[in-house]
Amino acid sequence: MRTETDSMGPIEVPDNCYWGAQTQRSLHYFAIGEDIMPPEMIRAIGILKKAAAIVNCDLGKLPPDQAELIIKAADEVIRGELDDHFPLSIWQTGSGTQTNMNANEVIANRAIELAGGILGSKEPIHPNDHVNMSQSSNDTFPTAMHIAAVEEIHHHLLPMLTKLIDALAAKQEQFNHIVKIGRTHLMDAVPLTLGQEFSGYVSQLEKNRDRLYQILPDLCELAIGGTAVGTGLNTHPQFAQRMAKEIAKLTDFPFVCATNKFAALASHDAIVMASGALKTLAASLMKIANDIRWLGSGPRCGLGELILPANEPGSSIMPGKVNPTQCEAMTMVCAQVMGNDTAINIAGSQGNFELNVFKPMMIFNLLNSIELLGDACSSFTDHLVVGLEPNREQIEYYLTNSLMLVTALNPHLGYDRAAQVAKKAYTDKTSLQQACVELGFLTAEEFNFLVRPEAMARPFENEL
Amino acid sequence: MRTETDSMGPIEVPDNCYWGAQTQRSLHYFAIGEDIMPPEMIRAIGILKKAAAIVNCDLGKLPPDQAELIIKAADEVIRGELDDHFPLSIWQTGSGTQTNMNANEVIANRAIELAGGILGSKEPIHPNDHVNMSQSSNDTFPTAMHIAAVEEIHHHLLPMLTKLIDALAAKQEQFNHIVKIGRTHLMDAVPLTLGQEFSGYVSQLEKNRDRLYQILPDLCELAIGGTAVGTGLNTHPQFAQRMAKEIAKLTDFPFVCATNKFAALASHDAIVMASGALKTLAASLMKIANDIRWLGSGPRCGLGELILPANEPGSSIMPGKVNPTQCEAMTMVCAQVMGNDTAINIAGSQGNFELNVFKPMMIFNLLNSIELLGDACSSFTDHLVVGLEPNREQIEYYLTNSLMLVTALNPHLGYDRAAQVAKKAYTDKTSLQQACVELGFLTAEEFNFLVRPEAMARPFENEL
Amino acid sequence: MRTETDSMGPIEVPDNCYWGAQTQRSLHYFAIGEDIMPPEMIRAIGILKKAAAIVNCDLGKLPPDQAELIIKAADEVIRGELDDHFPLSIWQTGSGTQTNMNANEVIANRAIELAGGILGSKEPIHPNDHVNMSQSSNDTFPTAMHIAAVEEIHHHLLPMLTKLIDALAAKQEQFNHIVKIGRTHLMDAVPLTLGQEFSGYVSQLEKNRDRLYQILPDLCELAIGGTAVGTGLNTHPQFAQRMAKEIAKLTDFPFVCATNKFAALASHDAIVMASGALKTLAASLMKIANDIRWLGSGPRCGLGELILPANEPGSSIMPGKVNPTQCEAMTMVCAQVMGNDTAINIAGSQGNFELNVFKPMMIFNLLNSIELLGDACSSFTDHLVVGLEPNREQIEYYLTNSLMLVTALNPHLGYDRAAQVAKKAYTDKTSLQQACVELGFLTAEEFNFLVRPEAMARPFENEL
Amino acid sequence: MRTETDSMGPIEVPDNCYWGAQTQRSLHYFAIGEDIMPPEMIRAIGILKKAAAIVNCDLGKLPPDQAELIIKAADEVIRGELDDHFPLSIWQTGSGTQTNMNANEVIANRAIELAGGILGSKEPIHPNDHVNMSQSSNDTFPTAMHIAAVEEIHHHLLPMLTKLIDALAAKQEQFNHIVKIGRTHLMDAVPLTLGQEFSGYVSQLEKNRDRLYQILPDLCELAIGGTAVGTGLNTHPQFAQRMAKEIAKLTDFPFVCATNKFAALASHDAIVMASGALKTLAASLMKIANDIRWLGSGPRCGLGELILPANEPGSSIMPGKVNPTQCEAMTMVCAQVMGNDTAINIAGSQGNFELNVFKPMMIFNLLNSIELLGDACSSFTDHLVVGLEPNREQIEYYLTNSLMLVTALNPHLGYDRAAQVAKKAYTDKTSLQQACVELGFLTAEEFNFLVRPEAMARPFENEL
Repeated sequence: MRTETDSMGPIEVPDNCYWGAQTQRSLHYFAIGEDIMPPEMIRAIGILKKAAAIVNCDLGKLPPDQAELIIKAADEVIRGELDDHFPLSIWQTGSGTQTNMNANEVIANRAIELAGGILGSKEPIHPNDHVNMSQSSNDTFPTAMHIAAVEEIHHHLLPMLTKLIDALAAKQEQFNHIVKIGRTHLMDAVPLTLGQEFSGYVSQLEKNRDRLYQILPDLCELAIGGTAVGTGLNTHPQFAQRMAKEIAKLTDFPFVCATNKFAALASHDAIVMASGALKTLAASLMKIANDIRWLGSGPRCGLGELILPANEPGSSIMPGKVNPTQCEAMTMVCAQVMGNDTAINIAGSQGNFELNVFKPMMIFNLLNSIELLGDACSSFTDHLVVGLEPNREQIEYYLTNSLMLVTALNPHLGYDRAAQVAKKAYTDKTSLQQACVELGFLTAEEFNFLVRPEAMARPFENEL
Repeated sequence: MRTETDSMGPIEVPDNCYWGAQTQRSLHYFAIGEDIMPPEMIRAIGILKKAAAIVNCDLGKLPPDQAELIIKAADEVIRGELDDHFPLSIWQTGSGTQTNMNANEVIANRAIELAGGILGSKEPIHPNDHVNMSQSSNDTFPTAMHIAAVEEIHHHLLPMLTKLIDALAAKQEQFNHIVKIGRTHLMDAVPLTLGQEFSGYVSQLEKNRDRLYQILPDLCELAIGGTAVGTGLNTHPQFAQRMAKEIAKLTDFPFVCATNKFAALASHDAIVMASGALKTLAASLMKIANDIRWLGSGPRCGLGELILPANEPGSSIMPGKVNPTQCEAMTMVCAQVMGNDTAINIAGSQGNFELNVFKPMMIFNLLNSIELLGDACSSFTDHLVVGLEPNREQIEYYLTNSLMLVTALNPHLGYDRAAQVAKKAYTDKTSLQQACVELGFLTAEEFNFLVRPEAMARPFENEL
Repeated sequence: MRTETDSMGPIEVPDNCYWGAQTQRSLHYFAIGEDIMPPEMIRAIGILKKAAAIVNCDLGKLPPDQAELIIKAADEVIRGELDDHFPLSIWQTGSGTQTNMNANEVIANRAIELAGGILGSKEPIHPNDHVNMSQSSNDTFPTAMHIAAVEEIHHHLLPMLTKLIDALAAKQEQFNHIVKIGRTHLMDAVPLTLGQEFSGYVSQLEKNRDRLYQILPDLCELAIGGTAVGTGLNTHPQFAQRMAKEIAKLTDFPFVCATNKFAALASHDAIVMASGALKTLAASLMKIANDIRWLGSGPRCGLGELILPANEPGSSIMPGKVNPTQCEAMTMVCAQVMGNDTAINIAGSQGNFELNVFKPMMIFNLLNSIELLGDACSSFTDHLVVGLEPNREQIEYYLTNSLMLVTALNPHLGYDRAAQVAKKAYTDKTSLQQACVELGFLTAEEFNFLVRPEAMARPFENEL
Repeated sequence: MRTETDSMGPIEVPDNCYWGAQTQRSLHYFAIGEDIMPPEMIRAIGILKKAAAIVNCDLGKLPPDQAELIIKAADEVIRGELDDHFPLSIWQTGSGTQTNMNANEVIANRAIELAGGILGSKEPIHPNDHVNMSQSSNDTFPTAMHIAAVEEIHHHLLPMLTKLIDALAAKQEQFNHIVKIGRTHLMDAVPLTLGQEFSGYVSQLEKNRDRLYQILPDLCELAIGGTAVGTGLNTHPQFAQRMAKEIAKLTDFPFVCATNKFAALASHDAIVMASGALKTLAASLMKIANDIRWLGSGPRCGLGELILPANEPGSSIMPGKVNPTQCEAMTMVCAQVMGNDTAINIAGSQGNFELNVFKPMMIFNLLNSIELLGDACSSFTDHLVVGLEPNREQIEYYLTNSLMLVTALNPHLGYDRAAQVAKKAYTDKTSLQQACVELGFLTAEEFNFLVRPEAMARPFENEL
């Protein structure tokens, strides 16, 4: 153990940790739950601290050698090498101050170490005076929230979602000519192609991808430069703009200064809205995953139009019992994202005056939703969608038997006689063809010529 | 128009209305939405005002003739005859003060009219001094919330829920001997009886009924007597107890004095918990309604095990397209109740100091959930459950074809040969019997003797 | 009573109603709750039916005289003149079929009446063959959902929100030079101006307005032309495009054909996302309304920095007890919108195959959120924001007494002596100035020269 | 690495792990998120597996030596010694099958090791045949859900909640005679004591504790014995009852057989309801935590009636800036619990036929809510409530200055003159006493004699 100090005095800290007094106090005072600040946030704070060292140096407020030390230590934070030194709970102070101080302390001590100094000495790098220079927890933490959200949406969710879209689009193509019965209200309806059905999924997800792009600009606005209440007290007039530019450079994302710094500290509407886009994606994915597991239900007593890949033992004795486990994981994730959204909404509504103090749990839930959706999209693609196959026999069986095809006879037999055919087939439990022939309205050949489900599924093909 | 006055001065009021100045102001200042205070709340306030007149008279604070006039007018409110005189929005002051004053004004003016006085004169009955005697909006409104909730749960929801339970229990009895295939993960599983499946629904709902009874005692605690902040300032020391007793007498429910009046004004945990029971019921009903519509899906391309009553045209040409519209109404109601629950949770968490000011919307949502669930249970029973019929042919078909029955052969053939049978049937797309016979393991008769789904569905019948 | 018929046979209908058999059946089978289809939806269906008559006529499918009759009747629907003839519950079939049929029946019968025909005769206008020509409930109802949502956001919510933004911006301007203490974690912080505080509100709401504009294009995509399952069976190949164009013309909004008709019937992601924008606005408004009621708390025992207009009696005896009733109505509305959002999310996730059957409750909740937010913004503006006044004395008092101003002395006295001043003032319960003078660090004049809150609130004013 | 096998064939498994093939497959197929099955669930499964070995042995189905080996290994699981061998994600199959198999595999291999056998050999203990004997994932997993929930509520949440109740009750006692101003609508109201205010908190939490006890019996019903679909196929007729008894014995909780096994597998209403009780507790705690942080706001520019313990540096320069960080952690936890509740509600509504497949995420959220609430109650007690002190000077100041005390003069001066006093004090910005004296109504002594806030706070003290 070594002694670290803050304005409340000295405190013992484990010797193998870079963190200092305020982190240690927080560990003591906030032994709540298991959730700790996610590494994506730690990385984002690392980026911010590095940018601050660069900008403070450029502005002549921080000597180059001190800046260099901070940058080196921050780089280690960015690369995740110091993740073990960020032990703090999500359930801490609502401004995230303790995590900001955790970063200041770790970077300072690691920089001190790099300079050959003594841990805890605050020489030559002071956690507050140097690492936190020109900053306040109140502007750094929300800045890091936005950096982390943008990075994760961009580097994780969007690629995984695109992978899923591509896989579904490939299936749409593959299933393009498979005509099947439609279902509305769960009841038999007029036909469409399996490719058309999948085109709906592709379209839903493409639009969700657009929505994610739509909410990014809001998240690209950074609170940095607002300091304690939004006025920017104790910063250089150019600090805010330069920081946004530097963070943009370090991340390759178009980060800019927040339109209004007071709003940027006191509210997190961009997070609330981002969660709104995520829950919309969740609603879409739940629909798609449900459809696929229903279409794959069976093997003998369900709908059985799709054959799902068998990844794990379903039943040790019964072949074909392939449980739709990927769909189950996906739908559980979707319900969770909706729950996270409720939590974020409540938190987002509860700011007071110059500060919203639900910051850690807001970003925790948002990053959780992003990660779960991204991972679930990836897993769903690799372990389910790419392996989906149509059960052509079953599809054909339904199609042939469906009474809804009778609508194709309307122009030829008239509505009343067509209805008569359907009614007879329903009562006799036969096919439409058989009923039609038995009624003497058409021969089997005529029936087959007139009733072509593929034409019903693509009514405009010939006309256009 | 006539002139009414309050402490802010005179204001014009339509002549054919009993309400007074404060109601009129509220109409002007709160033109928000269409939702007005539900009649169940107006009735509850009427009960409370009647009880107050009786108690104040008994305590010697209100002369019998004035009490009599108030009681007569309150009786009209209770019977709903003056509902048109309660025009105020839910989206008013969060204490419900304006609705309390609406009641005071209407009862006063109606009492004045009964006495042959002049509307608006406050003679011989004053809305504040007489109708609101010993009360504050802060204790009357939450008292009325509890009265309305208890009455509606008891008079509306519980009977309708019981009707549904009874109807499902009758079906359980009717379906007792129909053996069918089970489904887990939507996939074919071992058999059970349709009656057993329905017994699950009955059990779920019976437990939900228990839950409703469990939350009633909390709702039977009344805030009355707390007046403005919970101390009971300006009431008679016996007022609170006598009021609870009188309200109990008028309603036949075991209403009592709230354990703690400060909590009773500043929080509405009993409402939050009641909504917790309602959303649990909603979760159960959604499961049941979904099951029924899936079991009824088809007629040719779905599961088709149940036949739903045809209440309205599904498809004008296709017989058997009976859309599960009652299930759809029910599931929409369930989703709404869950949304109402979120609203109530947020509102319930937002009290400050001596008062929670989300009262009108909390009771609005709770009564809405109660009414919707009660009505939906009733409609679902009358227009769906009582008419449900099994599609025995389809049920039998699935049962015969299911590969899961193979498990019955384990004790006789051993696991490996049983699995071989299932595999052959799956590959050849035949029945288990056929596969078993073809493999030479059993004769058809032996197979039929050994594989008895009804024994699998009731494994303990013979043994116990 | 007169007799109307549908494919299920004859049924008695009240003679003074234009509706027909299917509406009457629905009234019988869905006696659930009080919520009926909102007039905005009825208007939207009217627009759609008018457009369909025009397009069908243009395409040569409907004779001009029949089209003319339908258009006339539809115009009456659009103008709300026939609202009384749309009695159906939200809690009906989940496709909205019964409301679509209600519209077909009312328009047909009214057109028949205009033509001098006999109600119920279906001559010369047939509800299905003519009014519903080329349409299905499955594409008309979601089309009307989008029309209603776009119209209400545009005609109601956006203007009311803009009114609020403008009123807050005027206050921002008015309060521009009023320096006040900041508060973070509810604790005293460094100063800012009251104008800056309000600029945060303005900025939040402006961004919410942007979000509403962002979600409109999605809502401008119309399902019409998809008919029963999305394939467009039984429509003219040009019907979809022409309909979108005609609806755009009738409404002056840029409606277009949905990208993918299968998705447009089977999911309502645009509605889910729109609700996501509305709940974000609700989160912002809750923060703002809370801030204002806290800043107005008092008059003697609260923060008391703002004076709220006295719209109604607060306390009959105590002057200055102005309850923040508009804030209370607003925060109740915000909690409701969040509840509505949960309901919409669940409903939006529950589509199956070719149809989502939670349509009526989804649009009911969305329109409810739009209306409540619009009305609440308007009421909040007119009855609260425009009348807000600063309590300069109180603001000045806090500012003078706050210990946070000590940070301004850092550059002059050094950190340690500045902290000493603050500590002494805190312990002695005096002002910073007094403590500083007593410690002999500065004269009162020097203190006043150095500690200028207005400079702290605008740190860059002189520098830039 | 060693080779393990399941019905899908062989797979490589790390040599230092006890898990087998199915766990390894799940790791591969469900790389989703970071959340793994919580140790409380692993412990519960351990208890269940131990009980099963005992019961199967008692029933003569499992030889004593094999039972003994399983019991020993299960004991290690119960004690948490094998937690590292349970690596599976929450986001797996919705029945929890993979975690059940994980337990079967780990216990089998550990038992094999204890017997000196070869890992993976399934000799002498087979994961399915012996560890999972008479069980199915479909009944074991929900059984473990209930065991874990009951244990955590009982061993963790209830004690922590009771600790908080006791601490608040001690403060109620301590603050019993401190008269303070009441606040309704955030505005000054009539007085009460600080003890009375805290009595409201105590009462709220006591009732929440009652609610937790109320929901326990439901959770004490166990699904075990239902096996795959609820019929109990492949179990001994006495298995279910004996298991419940054995688990009750092992845990000291009154576990019983579920009333209806079909419902117990297909729905999780008891979990949904339990979450309803937890969200009610969350609503109460949010109210209390908010009150305390508002009452502690300041030190100079807030309400300042309470002094909160200073656990960490608030502002390095400003004394008295004690951020209410425990309140912030608590309110974040409460919002999270409400979000978890939404997730649970959705999941609970989504069962189909014989199985609900949202099991892992339901119990994950429930245990998370239990743990967070328990931990937060504990932290809130230790680091906030026990150190709370009244700021008597500030409380007295408000009380003296409040105009609401004027109501005490009504009986003496009459309403009109009392109102005149209040109005003069408000206009002149003086105290009531000063205004009253200046108006010549009373002397200062008379005023002080008549206006006694302590009598207003306890109106019945003398009378009763």
